[in-house]
Amino acid sequence: MKVRQLFDPESSTYSYLLWNEKDKEAALIDSVKEQVEKDTILINELGLKLKYLLETHIHADHITGAGDLRKHFDAKVLVHKNSDSKCADQLLNNGDVIHLGSENIKVLYTPGHTNTDISYVIDSAVFTGDTLLIRGSGRTDFQSGNAGDAYDSITQKLFILSDSTLVYPGHDYNGFTVSTIGEEKQYNPRIGNGKTRKEYIEIMENMDLPRPKMIEQAVPKNLQCGLS
Amino acid sequence: MKVRQLFDPESSTYSYLLWNEKDKEAALIDSVKEQVEKDTILINELGLKLKYLLETHIHADHITGAGDLRKHFDAKVLVHKNSDSKCADQLLNNGDVIHLGSENIKVLYTPGHTNTDISYVIDSAVFTGDTLLIRGSGRTDFQSGNAGDAYDSITQKLFILSDSTLVYPGHDYNGFTVSTIGEEKQYNPRIGNGKTRKEYIEIMENMDLPRPKMIEQAVPKNLQCGLS
Repeated sequence: MKVRQLFDPESSTYSYLLWNEKDKEAALIDSVKEQVEKDTILINELGLKLKYLLETHIHADHITGAGDLRKHFDAKVLVHKNSDSKCADQLLNNGDVIHLGSENIKVLYTPGHTNTDISYVIDSAVFTGDTLLIRGSGRTDFQSGNAGDAYDSITQKLFILSDSTLVYPGHDYNGFTVSTIGEEKQYNPRIGNGKTRKEYIEIMENMDLPRPKMIEQAVPKNLQCGLS
Repeated sequence: MKVRQLFDPESSTYSYLLWNEKDKEAALIDSVKEQVEKDTILINELGLKLKYLLETHIHADHITGAGDLRKHFDAKVLVHKNSDSKCADQLLNNGDVIHLGSENIKVLYTPGHTNTDISYVIDSAVFTGDTLLIRGSGRTDFQSGNAGDAYDSITQKLFILSDSTLVYPGHDYNGFTVSTIGEEKQYNPRIGNGKTRKEYIEIMENMDLPRPKMIEQAVPKNLQCGLS
């Protein structure tokens, strides 16, 4: 599977274009509305057939480009069933498999940041959304987030992947682009190196973060695939 | 060869950590002074022996972290001979080969943005500095830049690499992280799709760009490996 990492500087969001080089079937994870024109040009230049617009969760910090991209391509929007999204073409469950030609993307339900979090797994890599960030993790204080759930998702579903699995997060604010499961197990300051569930919950519950600026607009819009 | 792309948001600079997984020998291309602490931690976490601090050119838009990193590691600073750098441990020429254990990095002299430009080539990828950017190219209006030289470097030294070669640029301002030689040959708006040398020179000579804010500080400091 080919992977192309894309960046939205305004929201520090990473999007990921995945494709099967043989038959050119593609999926775009976590598109950003402001990047739709750029993404459309790139997908066309690469000669890809965009089949799926995948969301790692209902975002609170940017508006998805999925609805706009669906107009340009014959693609389906897929989000987790807990979102109860009315605009999605398919609601995903843990264990679902998405096919790009002969290659697969596996759906792992990894809640905690929200209750709609999916990590998408391919052979060599996992796209972790905001569940696991590089040397960090997504906040758990809104949108049905739960620090205990996040701990369980990360330790029981992500940290059991092979150490060499590449970790592609939904955001990065520190100049990192990619990590590995092995690194995060060892060096993630919040949850690596054997941190207990209790320690993690305490860290996450004492973060005292400001409310995301865009949450009031972004969440309802993202439940409409980014359209009004 | 393992590749880890790193980003400095302030200057939109990409640095690249390359290493041979077997013996852990590493090189860092285009380090950034503000990122030295982060890079040092990462290199230590990955258990790497940093051997080389490579520059793609004498930068005008950020200050290199090479001098600072050399203090932390037993590493050599390598830049092109035209820089006449007094602080470098080795001055590079076209065709030189840098060894990381059993793996090699090849030096391609690709002038045009400046007269000190090097592209570093490994099996699967080329690190093009400011010579070739994703759907763009580095300006050629200062530091002995020359649009004709840039055209020759790109078309005669980079575009002859295999189409699947990954292109890792020195900067990106548009949300791209990587491209391929095949894509740039076809879609680079300045030099792709058979643009002539004359057309390229005309484009580059009519860009009317402002003088880089940091050039007066950065160039002399970078000739001192980023140290005062």
